[in-house]
Amino acid sequence: MAQEDLFKKLVAHCKEYGYVFQSSEIYDGLSAVYDYGQYGVELKNNIKKYWWDSMVLLHENVVGLDSAIFMHPTIWKASGHVDAFNDPLIDNKDSKKRYRADVLIEDQLAKYEAKIDKEVAKAQKRFGDAFDEKQFRETNPRVLANQKKYDDLHERFAKALNDNDLKELKQIIEDEGIVCPVSGSRNWTDVRQFNLMFSTEMGSTSDGSSKIYLRPETAQGIFVNYMNVQKSGRMKIPFGIAQIGKAFRNEIVARQFIFRMREFEQMELQFFVRPGTELDWFEKWKTIRMKWHQALGFGEENYRFHEHEKLAHYANAAVDVEYKFPFGFKEVEGIHSRTDFDLAQHEKYSGKKIRYFDPEINESYVPYVVETSIGVDRMFLQVISAAYCEEELEKDSRVVLKLPPVLAPVKLAVMPLVKKDRLPEKAREIIDKLKFDFNCKYDEKDSIGKRYRRQDAVGTPFCVTVDHQTTEDNTVTIRYRDSMEQERVTIAGLGKIIGEKVSMRKLFEKL
Amino acid sequence: MAQEDLFKKLVAHCKEYGYVFQSSEIYDGLSAVYDYGQYGVELKNNIKKYWWDSMVLLHENVVGLDSAIFMHPTIWKASGHVDAFNDPLIDNKDSKKRYRADVLIEDQLAKYEAKIDKEVAKAQKRFGDAFDEKQFRETNPRVLANQKKYDDLHERFAKALNDNDLKELKQIIEDEGIVCPVSGSRNWTDVRQFNLMFSTEMGSTSDGSSKIYLRPETAQGIFVNYMNVQKSGRMKIPFGIAQIGKAFRNEIVARQFIFRMREFEQMELQFFVRPGTELDWFEKWKTIRMKWHQALGFGEENYRFHEHEKLAHYANAAVDVEYKFPFGFKEVEGIHSRTDFDLAQHEKYSGKKIRYFDPEINESYVPYVVETSIGVDRMFLQVISAAYCEEELEKDSRVVLKLPPVLAPVKLAVMPLVKKDRLPEKAREIIDKLKFDFNCKYDEKDSIGKRYRRQDAVGTPFCVTVDHQTTEDNTVTIRYRDSMEQERVTIAGLGKIIGEKVSMRKLFEKL
Repeated sequence: MAQEDLFKKLVAHCKEYGYVFQSSEIYDGLSAVYDYGQYGVELKNNIKKYWWDSMVLLHENVVGLDSAIFMHPTIWKASGHVDAFNDPLIDNKDSKKRYRADVLIEDQLAKYEAKIDKEVAKAQKRFGDAFDEKQFRETNPRVLANQKKYDDLHERFAKALNDNDLKELKQIIEDEGIVCPVSGSRNWTDVRQFNLMFSTEMGSTSDGSSKIYLRPETAQGIFVNYMNVQKSGRMKIPFGIAQIGKAFRNEIVARQFIFRMREFEQMELQFFVRPGTELDWFEKWKTIRMKWHQALGFGEENYRFHEHEKLAHYANAAVDVEYKFPFGFKEVEGIHSRTDFDLAQHEKYSGKKIRYFDPEINESYVPYVVETSIGVDRMFLQVISAAYCEEELEKDSRVVLKLPPVLAPVKLAVMPLVKKDRLPEKAREIIDKLKFDFNCKYDEKDSIGKRYRRQDAVGTPFCVTVDHQTTEDNTVTIRYRDSMEQERVTIAGLGKIIGEKVSMRKLFEKL
Repeated sequence: MAQEDLFKKLVAHCKEYGYVFQSSEIYDGLSAVYDYGQYGVELKNNIKKYWWDSMVLLHENVVGLDSAIFMHPTIWKASGHVDAFNDPLIDNKDSKKRYRADVLIEDQLAKYEAKIDKEVAKAQKRFGDAFDEKQFRETNPRVLANQKKYDDLHERFAKALNDNDLKELKQIIEDEGIVCPVSGSRNWTDVRQFNLMFSTEMGSTSDGSSKIYLRPETAQGIFVNYMNVQKSGRMKIPFGIAQIGKAFRNEIVARQFIFRMREFEQMELQFFVRPGTELDWFEKWKTIRMKWHQALGFGEENYRFHEHEKLAHYANAAVDVEYKFPFGFKEVEGIHSRTDFDLAQHEKYSGKKIRYFDPEINESYVPYVVETSIGVDRMFLQVISAAYCEEELEKDSRVVLKLPPVLAPVKLAVMPLVKKDRLPEKAREIIDKLKFDFNCKYDEKDSIGKRYRRQDAVGTPFCVTVDHQTTEDNTVTIRYRDSMEQERVTIAGLGKIIGEKVSMRKLFEKL
């Protein structure tokens, strides 16, 4: 199955089984905003708990924080977001459609690549096993011509972005003859900067309200509370502050379902260290974070590090953790060595000292920061696309979400074989025993086979069937989602069997 | 100690011990917005977990949801918020200060009450035990005069509010001769309506962006997803949808610390029922919710129901759960029978059918809704003000947060008696054993006595001291926060002792 089809099916599955709904769907939706349904919210909460506990419970020197979305507007001046958190936009005068200028140029680059790939594929087909792709690429005139176009454009584009040269971006679009996909015309406006922060007005005084922003990242909430936490918590460097919270970006081109949304949630750690030790800590956190991802069991080969070619102005090292999504390797987490940029900026703009006196070296300094930042929604998409399987079985097929049991929204479904003979009551007795410890579901409708399929589609790792034998000897059938194997076990033993498989503790022991 | 002083001390304590910080404090703060510090976030998370699990795990027919803050703007038209979610504002032309007209009038009412109270207090002092307050109130001319003024104003004010008559509000302010507290003048503007929703612009198209709102309540996110959840979850009425999330209100007069904030968090259940059964369910949920509050052990006498005199336009029954805060009995939770108002409005505005076919009565209808709605921040304030104690001891005094152990941010502090002889290592071994299950804190600085006081102030229910005997026989001293009693126990037995006291399961068994 093509990866694109798989992705479409995944999106449909998320809706059908109560994982993710389009926001405001009955009002024809709100673009690039999504709601989490009854199973989605549980999966999301479990992901957040896995992250939070791995940070706060497992690291003696990491504490949490929950800062507000609303912050003083000067904070975004200090962080650079007011001046530099922009996308370059361009309008087509005929279609009245607006585009990101950089995306139009990236699409043009992709076209040259596609032309080359087409030549290669054609030759491959013609020459079969004898085909030497490397030699072909180095000698074929059509490939070489397109490769040159690609390289020239790439270089020019990179320079324009680097210089933040809007006129040059426009010139590139004109020189390349890029047309509007809607009107087909080359009738473009100038390129303008568009700030990605949402703003709103707070308060109401007769001399006007004040403009504030919805935070575009949670990190600054940690930085401005650095002194509060360090002092009230008597923290000693190195230490970290972990936070989970919403952030907002007015993305013009929001794509790929919940991968890039206008309202999203971040899980960020800011780890404060002595200047000069930051690159060691950067390496340590790279290792810790990769282990955290890989412990979920989706295959180590599906993760990789991607070093940033160009560093942001505040960073002296940066790497992404990438996962192989159905649409290719993409970032799920960013790890940055942010130097003392943010704290020093807040010192400057607030006029308050942000220093740490380090008793070990008898010196006072602005701490350096190593950041690990992961999108909850993107992590959700990573988990659910890794878990989604279509399996051909002997007699039929099934769709199953092979979620790690510790993350699965529902841990077990309890099913009476028939709706009589006190089997429903017995099933509910089992639920009453287990519901304090696990999210349980009672399911009595349709045949057992259909119920298994339904629970497979939701990702429930265990199904427990109550039958007539149960009323005699207090045993039930437990059926495992992935292997589809069944086993007869005592009701008294259920808690232990399930508890071991869904234990976050076991997962932590791998870290 | 006066209740007001107590409240001030509580606010200072929250800052000093990492519970609650003023937002953007180093930038001189952002009005009516607060951040939760390293202990605050844990207490808040535990409150949320107590609510969430009590809803979703304990009720077979309640599922969760996590809808976005951004929603289609027509939703707020349908809900009535665009047209009617207003405060009446008035400006003083001399001071340029802006006020809520209704609050100015309420303050005037309070002045009449204060005058009466003063007369009563004076007479009480004069007559001592022989004083008959009832008779005095019914006969004293000054009391009677003020009582009449109060009654007349109250009646006129209630009518103006009911009729939404802004001119009459202005007239009342003029007739009462109410002056601006800043300028002292009676030079007022007209009263105007001010909508409490924050708005922002989403997207950027060449024909303009669209105005959207930050949700002023989470409830509508549930209503617009009613069909999605009911269908994908195959839910049968009666059933409920539970949600925790942020909401925003541009309060002009925000007061009392985190009691009323501009950015706050709600925990709401919308419970869908067959029309005609809603008042029975309203009573059931009243009982369930009161039990939930009282199970925390802060004294049943500190809670009461407060029936609404005037019902909102969407409700046919409404009650508040009130708790006795340091500033008096105030709402912590609202329970409303919302009828079919919201779903019917969304049917009308979206043009989509929102119906449930009830197989038991073979009939299709718009479900009725019973809502339970509680502010997380307000609940946090309730818990922490109930827990805050100043205790005189034999030799000194202490401040202790008597938080229910299940809600306490840190469950135990592990303390080596001295920083040598391998006691720190032993303490960390204990933490490594227990940290998967409980939030543990290592604490080695200062005398044991000081460390106890510090943990008391944070609300840590258990302190474990590691001494030289520990290295010989693997026993430790456990010290209980509330009784301050100490006991010698084995390290192996710690998990069980603490586990039983911090178990949410035990709390649930009371519900």
